[in-house]
Amino acid sequence: MVIIMNADATAENIKNVIEAIQDVGLTAQIMEGAQQKIVGVIGDKSRMGSLAIDAMDGVEKTVEISKSYKLASREFHPQSTVVDVDGVKIGGGNLVVMAGPCAVESREQLFEAADLVKKAGAQFLRGGAYKPRTSPYSFQGLEETGLRYLAEARERTGLKIVTEVTEVEAVETVAKYADMLQIGARNMQNFRLLKEVGRTDKPVLLKRGLAATLNEWLNAAEYIMSEGNPNVVFCERGIRTYETYTRNTLDLSAVAAIKHLSHLPIIVDPSHGTGKWRMVKPMAFAAVAAGADGLMMEMHPNPAKALSDGPQSLTPENFSQVMQGLQQLSAFLHTSGLEITTL
Amino acid sequence: MVIIMNADATAENIKNVIEAIQDVGLTAQIMEGAQQKIVGVIGDKSRMGSLAIDAMDGVEKTVEISKSYKLASREFHPQSTVVDVDGVKIGGGNLVVMAGPCAVESREQLFEAADLVKKAGAQFLRGGAYKPRTSPYSFQGLEETGLRYLAEARERTGLKIVTEVTEVEAVETVAKYADMLQIGARNMQNFRLLKEVGRTDKPVLLKRGLAATLNEWLNAAEYIMSEGNPNVVFCERGIRTYETYTRNTLDLSAVAAIKHLSHLPIIVDPSHGTGKWRMVKPMAFAAVAAGADGLMMEMHPNPAKALSDGPQSLTPENFSQVMQGLQQLSAFLHTSGLEITTL
Amino acid sequence: MVIIMNADATAENIKNVIEAIQDVGLTAQIMEGAQQKIVGVIGDKSRMGSLAIDAMDGVEKTVEISKSYKLASREFHPQSTVVDVDGVKIGGGNLVVMAGPCAVESREQLFEAADLVKKAGAQFLRGGAYKPRTSPYSFQGLEETGLRYLAEARERTGLKIVTEVTEVEAVETVAKYADMLQIGARNMQNFRLLKEVGRTDKPVLLKRGLAATLNEWLNAAEYIMSEGNPNVVFCERGIRTYETYTRNTLDLSAVAAIKHLSHLPIIVDPSHGTGKWRMVKPMAFAAVAAGADGLMMEMHPNPAKALSDGPQSLTPENFSQVMQGLQQLSAFLHTSGLEITTL
Amino acid sequence: MVIIMNADATAENIKNVIEAIQDVGLTAQIMEGAQQKIVGVIGDKSRMGSLAIDAMDGVEKTVEISKSYKLASREFHPQSTVVDVDGVKIGGGNLVVMAGPCAVESREQLFEAADLVKKAGAQFLRGGAYKPRTSPYSFQGLEETGLRYLAEARERTGLKIVTEVTEVEAVETVAKYADMLQIGARNMQNFRLLKEVGRTDKPVLLKRGLAATLNEWLNAAEYIMSEGNPNVVFCERGIRTYETYTRNTLDLSAVAAIKHLSHLPIIVDPSHGTGKWRMVKPMAFAAVAAGADGLMMEMHPNPAKALSDGPQSLTPENFSQVMQGLQQLSAFLHTSGLEITTL
Repeated sequence: MVIIMNADATAENIKNVIEAIQDVGLTAQIMEGAQQKIVGVIGDKSRMGSLAIDAMDGVEKTVEISKSYKLASREFHPQSTVVDVDGVKIGGGNLVVMAGPCAVESREQLFEAADLVKKAGAQFLRGGAYKPRTSPYSFQGLEETGLRYLAEARERTGLKIVTEVTEVEAVETVAKYADMLQIGARNMQNFRLLKEVGRTDKPVLLKRGLAATLNEWLNAAEYIMSEGNPNVVFCERGIRTYETYTRNTLDLSAVAAIKHLSHLPIIVDPSHGTGKWRMVKPMAFAAVAAGADGLMMEMHPNPAKALSDGPQSLTPENFSQVMQGLQQLSAFLHTSGLEITTL
Repeated sequence: MVIIMNADATAENIKNVIEAIQDVGLTAQIMEGAQQKIVGVIGDKSRMGSLAIDAMDGVEKTVEISKSYKLASREFHPQSTVVDVDGVKIGGGNLVVMAGPCAVESREQLFEAADLVKKAGAQFLRGGAYKPRTSPYSFQGLEETGLRYLAEARERTGLKIVTEVTEVEAVETVAKYADMLQIGARNMQNFRLLKEVGRTDKPVLLKRGLAATLNEWLNAAEYIMSEGNPNVVFCERGIRTYETYTRNTLDLSAVAAIKHLSHLPIIVDPSHGTGKWRMVKPMAFAAVAAGADGLMMEMHPNPAKALSDGPQSLTPENFSQVMQGLQQLSAFLHTSGLEITTL
Repeated sequence: MVIIMNADATAENIKNVIEAIQDVGLTAQIMEGAQQKIVGVIGDKSRMGSLAIDAMDGVEKTVEISKSYKLASREFHPQSTVVDVDGVKIGGGNLVVMAGPCAVESREQLFEAADLVKKAGAQFLRGGAYKPRTSPYSFQGLEETGLRYLAEARERTGLKIVTEVTEVEAVETVAKYADMLQIGARNMQNFRLLKEVGRTDKPVLLKRGLAATLNEWLNAAEYIMSEGNPNVVFCERGIRTYETYTRNTLDLSAVAAIKHLSHLPIIVDPSHGTGKWRMVKPMAFAAVAAGADGLMMEMHPNPAKALSDGPQSLTPENFSQVMQGLQQLSAFLHTSGLEITTL
Repeated sequence: MVIIMNADATAENIKNVIEAIQDVGLTAQIMEGAQQKIVGVIGDKSRMGSLAIDAMDGVEKTVEISKSYKLASREFHPQSTVVDVDGVKIGGGNLVVMAGPCAVESREQLFEAADLVKKAGAQFLRGGAYKPRTSPYSFQGLEETGLRYLAEARERTGLKIVTEVTEVEAVETVAKYADMLQIGARNMQNFRLLKEVGRTDKPVLLKRGLAATLNEWLNAAEYIMSEGNPNVVFCERGIRTYETYTRNTLDLSAVAAIKHLSHLPIIVDPSHGTGKWRMVKPMAFAAVAAGADGLMMEMHPNPAKALSDGPQSLTPENFSQVMQGLQQLSAFLHTSGLEITTL
């Protein structure tokens, strides 16, 4: 940490800051600038937890230098991690696709979707059994019945199942049926839930919060990992900005940033990221070119009849066409050596 | 709902949209614009849940007209609600102040704070026993021990206790000790938790999410109310914007907006809203002038030694001075008839 | 400036950074952290202009310590400035009100507005003669004809005239008619225009850009002041956020921040800040309580017939009522010593 | 336009709204919803300019249906436009690259850069002669001298020249030397400047404003086109969000959106869009995959000595490598039919 003193800080102010630092067993080093003094803090950052230097007289602001996440950080783990979901590898040059309807609506709808997803060449079936909805009066999901349909669809197709878990009480149940647990955007800082999935042996797909910084997102992964679960995959799904034409603003630079800051894989969800099915294909292509390890896309046998998120769902025909393009693009990047792995 | 068709939508497209609406028992009405046709949907909105009109061919976008929250809406409940917290009234012209440290750190710290809060004339003691923190390695709170200290501080001072509950499993425990349950910004859309506090008989203080729209916030209140708990108080605590000088951007216009859209009381937290103790006084004064029903402020016996949020905590001296000013200002607004109640 | 090196920066990297600093005549000081080295730069910051330290190998990021604005800064000018506009003082405890229609539409409309503004006790008449509009097909203002009407309204009422100048070519003309030149939000970083008004002898009202940081805003004032014009008054008018209920998000904490960072006066425009006439009164009261030196408000003799910005304009009756409240509130704050001047 | 009345609007309110619409020669059509009435307005939208329906009693809000831009709209011009810059075509399947230093610093620096840009296969040399800078004390550009160097570099290499014009007075001068005029982000709503470049015969590169909506951006193009200049190319360069890790948030979904809403070409600037040279390659690849018609990238012979924007500049080696990758990727997309042209 670097402490920047006010231009008019007194010698007494600086002395107090230094003593506070030394009191918790850390070392202070002073740097005299042209207008302002700066105090550097050296030693184990966790000891600073009990100090609020910013509140001391004469302090203008403090700047954090070291990162608060370690297990998720590439600095401490230079080699890229490949997450194995019951035999399907995420990371390491494989393009993984997770597709399916927003919500599990019925056995028929899910089976129809699963067959289409399988046929188009994706590896994962997605579908929400627990749906977090803005309004309490919207469709909230089929819950355990939905999970059972998902498990049946796995039997039928061999696809892996990824589905959202929205509450601590449901973690055990969801883990019984799913191959991968999804933490949704609204729960990215539901720390209790993060810890709970961190205690399971299922890989976790961690969506970015609606307005989460990269730093908060990396720390959310740290919550899961610090409980013993090393298998975390990030999913960029758009952030909230002032722009209203798209549902969210898909931040593809997050793919590059996460690859630089972390060793964990990252996939992209262009369906939620844009909210418009027309934009799914160009954004899916862009995500792969930017180095994403996979995609999550909404596909519905009949989008106009979807119980949620219809406008952003691909039809089976669109989806099949997007899949073919993605496979060609991915193969080209791989063979031509243009694939972006780290930076 | 109003459905805006593309300029090049065909008669067939429009026919399909109308049929889809009629299929669920609603009435469609067409309006022919200069360039585009518009289809209005009349009837019980909840029937639309199963339709994704946006995904149909020829549809440009849909515009929602009616509100998805009812119990929280002033339209359905014109008279302003006064929430009674064990004898202390929030709303109806009383200025309520909730103050105390960010976190309960020790019995001594809390008692010292409680005595100061009481002496300065506030009605509520605040203090976190469960602390949601960005990093898993930061201080996470004293949990039930902290709750016991809060209850002891109530015995000692007569102050009401408001404290955050961060997980479903803790609701019962927190409700045992606290007079009012606080839902923090990160949990504003933790729908399972909202429902759980909605099933208790304790009033709920609902903080605005980090990047929540007013509509999402009102719907979060609806989640609580639809479970049977009518006693919800909003708390504006700043929203996330591009500005970095302040920790958040305190949105005081939310006070006026909520008073217009809802009958529930709203208070303001200028400590989290700005992240700087210097700004607490001007923003507290502004909140009261704008019509807020109360304030939540962080005060710490020794901010520089706070385990969290020191920079935004007032010292006892500052706090006492702010309280005196607030009481004078509130009395003036009341007696002069300048108080803003609804708009 | 403080330079934070990567955790894996080599000794060679650090040597190169130090040499680059020394090459431009500055001093480098190294601080060894637990995980990372930090290099402090001491000396005249302007010499750093020719260095892009961030681009050097081994550098993680640089943190700017000193401010790039001086003339606008309170550090270099501790005493609050009072701007005198032909006898009307802005700052120093006077509440100044600027009111009138968004646009000058006709002589009759303006005179009617001016009489109402005068009668209600405001000191300035506002009204746009040059209107920057999103669409080229919207009403763009009466230009010099509008300026003449404003000057006539001054003759008639004694009100001071503040009006926007949107282009360099019009500065001389606008300065001929107006008492105070307004720089609008869209031109806050039109640096050529800032310099031009900086060369006039008219006080300048500098609105905050749509998404301008406080730092950018203070530097915009510095552009004007560095050309020789010391009479700048800030005007907070709301910033762009994700919230769509209000036209902008009025950032009243900017009032407190500017009073801390600068010696210049600041007023608030709750009309543009909210976009809703209902919210003007509560936000105007809040601004005054927060320490604003004045207000700018839109009032139209007949808002429903306004050529622009009707929804946010007060009717004459509303305006008169708001003015009475403001005068009472301001007098109370003054006499009770609760007025916020600096912090 | 659709007018949504309050739930408690009276018959009188609705009558007044209808009369106001009819008074300006438009037709009103009423739709009775379950809770609220809606009034549709039919006819020539420009007649609405003189009405502020939102300000009328009983009106909740108005929703604009038709677009305010026409010349820039794909609805009115379904075929994609190819902009010809003195023989180099932008749009229509050609990948155009504009590269060079942020600022023209000296003849030597520019010539060295130009040779590298040419050798790597780009078609345009970029370089600022007029630099808009946040602080008045930063390097502001070589002005006409810089323009002369750019023209000399064109002679030397055959590259086309694109450079920013920041003020009306300089348009004629810049147009004398440059092949394409750039409007920078800070001037995207400098309407006077837009009109001025609209009166030249030079193609215009229109960067997106710091926090501009797509609608505002399209209207800015309309300002240029409505003065007679049809040759406008959009340039996405990142928008301002709460995220601070990147300088801006590059919004690649804008590429898809603009291709849908407009017939004009769009290129992407990943250098300003991210502020980090490491991210330029992945974001450049992503932009091309998303369907961008070209790229603008900063390359500096020696980034660490750049007078501005060093951290985001590629070295000659990086640039050359990125260019090779882009050419391969672009060729692959073209030959495989995966290129995204419209959607």
